[in-house]
Amino acid sequence: MEKSTAIILTHGMLATSNAKTCHGLLRGTERFDILAVIDYQHAGSDAGEVMDGNTLGIPIFASVAEYKNSELPIPKYCVVGVALHGGQLPDDFREELYTAIGSGMGVVCGLHTFLSDDPYFNALAEKNRLELIDVRKPKPRNSLRFWTGDIYSVKTPKIAVLGTDCALGKRTTCRMLMESCRKNDIATEMIYTGQTGWMQGYPYGFIFDSTVNDFVSGEIERVIVDCANESNPDLILIEGQSALRNPNGPCGSEIILSGNVTGVILQHAPGRRCYDSTDISIPLIASEIGLLSLYGARVLAITLNEENMTDAELTAYQRETEATMGIPVVRPLKEGVDRLIPVVREFMGF
Amino acid sequence: MEKSTAIILTHGMLATSNAKTCHGLLRGTERFDILAVIDYQHAGSDAGEVMDGNTLGIPIFASVAEYKNSELPIPKYCVVGVALHGGQLPDDFREELYTAIGSGMGVVCGLHTFLSDDPYFNALAEKNRLELIDVRKPKPRNSLRFWTGDIYSVKTPKIAVLGTDCALGKRTTCRMLMESCRKNDIATEMIYTGQTGWMQGYPYGFIFDSTVNDFVSGEIERVIVDCANESNPDLILIEGQSALRNPNGPCGSEIILSGNVTGVILQHAPGRRCYDSTDISIPLIASEIGLLSLYGARVLAITLNEENMTDAELTAYQRETEATMGIPVVRPLKEGVDRLIPVVREFMGF
Repeated sequence: MEKSTAIILTHGMLATSNAKTCHGLLRGTERFDILAVIDYQHAGSDAGEVMDGNTLGIPIFASVAEYKNSELPIPKYCVVGVALHGGQLPDDFREELYTAIGSGMGVVCGLHTFLSDDPYFNALAEKNRLELIDVRKPKPRNSLRFWTGDIYSVKTPKIAVLGTDCALGKRTTCRMLMESCRKNDIATEMIYTGQTGWMQGYPYGFIFDSTVNDFVSGEIERVIVDCANESNPDLILIEGQSALRNPNGPCGSEIILSGNVTGVILQHAPGRRCYDSTDISIPLIASEIGLLSLYGARVLAITLNEENMTDAELTAYQRETEATMGIPVVRPLKEGVDRLIPVVREFMGF
Repeated sequence: MEKSTAIILTHGMLATSNAKTCHGLLRGTERFDILAVIDYQHAGSDAGEVMDGNTLGIPIFASVAEYKNSELPIPKYCVVGVALHGGQLPDDFREELYTAIGSGMGVVCGLHTFLSDDPYFNALAEKNRLELIDVRKPKPRNSLRFWTGDIYSVKTPKIAVLGTDCALGKRTTCRMLMESCRKNDIATEMIYTGQTGWMQGYPYGFIFDSTVNDFVSGEIERVIVDCANESNPDLILIEGQSALRNPNGPCGSEIILSGNVTGVILQHAPGRRCYDSTDISIPLIASEIGLLSLYGARVLAITLNEENMTDAELTAYQRETEATMGIPVVRPLKEGVDRLIPVVREFMGF
């Protein structure tokens, strides 16, 4: 995939979990070459430092206009780098995007507001001969497939990275695991299931939440079958969405059942009490592992999101949970995920 | 709801489970007044007798042309009365529908083939000034709502009629239970979740499988909240879809979690080994009840589909399962569902 230049608009949210699309792109993308982040709260800082303390050499500008006045080149795209509950484009993002289009940038957006359906955006983009890419726009029905059972012919080992909630690092852990596997000579493909995954440029995937429900199972099957047949990897990793028991949109059983997935890495935030944007308690991790076993999937390891926990608390939780559950409990952002390689190899039958 | 006259096209499939849309309409609909069924395999018989042996006084004609030549009036609609794996309109249905439109009937169709997107159907309907109603056509995005948590303000008891597979009688049991509850002075509303439910004319519902995945949870919540606020019933019943572990399209956890449903009636076909159109075994009923309990729902009773079982086998299964599970096991088509009223009342807190 040839990379396109891009800037990412987070408009004050870079340090929040709403900027997970931006965070994903900063952590690595085969689709874009990121020149800068636009965020008025953090102008002048380095984007990586704001995100997780690791310098990336990617500058932050206060506005698209300020970026335009810098000596950096006009990128091919301005990417909307936030995911918002409800998925609507906030009004104060509009002005920034108007400036971006007026300055010669196309727009990539993964929200539920489709810019290409907006008469004003459409006219502006047409006038400037620029692209509006709505990543979440559903595919036409005749390009979707129903589930057929072909999945059972795939012999490649498959691991899903599921989580106990939304927005706690499933995709990041999945990508880190892909990189670690490749470094360890396990030819690995990662299947994306969200808009950020598309933006990161993995060749196989689909956008789960913008697919008409009846085709979700078939799309899961199709991407796995295509990936196995075309790339023939040693291992397929699948990015999960939401959580099995999140009332805001339960998800995961389709990946296990329709994708015939038997291994799970479970991302968990021990410092988070309730499902994202609700006051509904997240069940105990042992209960989630039990639920997954009823679906026929074995949890190979637990990976931790660090929010609301001190280093000491995380270490204690990690030790206790490893002892209780008898599986590795890993802190990806602190220690990487290389410690998962032995369980992955064991799962693969080595 | 004022009823419209209709004939139902099953085209040779009336005696098969593919005709479940027709079966549902024959069992009762507030939307249509059914004048006849069109089925070349059973012409001359009574539709009810072919379906389940109970005479309904609804004649079967071999073709739409034959119906047109009878003395019965031209109905407002010809309803496509089959649900097919893949949801595509078979070619041999087309000719019959062309005749229907040419004879002055609109068409109601719940398949995934949208007649209103077909240039030929469209031109024909326009020329004859007739309606093409594609029940499964997704609603426009701006009429869909996201899940908000408002469901927790609904105090009305809610029971979902789920099943251990597709096409085994969930909707029929749900409707029978609604009728039995009403007869027993429990003001009951039934929420539909499939195209046949829409055709039957319940005022609240949505079509689960044609909803973009991200809005499924919100639509479940919306219909329940609207039903509770506008109709204020004593009890809300919800038609389930598919089965929790059907790889062809798992479903049910959204109803439980996003609809905050705590009671389940579980429809089961003990004579069916594998999920519909697959060779994947259906799990044991005890395991399904355990799975539902992990989602926070209690199974109040089991209702049986009678396929592939003798009367003696069903009686034995019924007795054994009641003893093992400690809940009523009922044969709706044989004995009705009045025996469920005590468990429903107990669940409602009486």
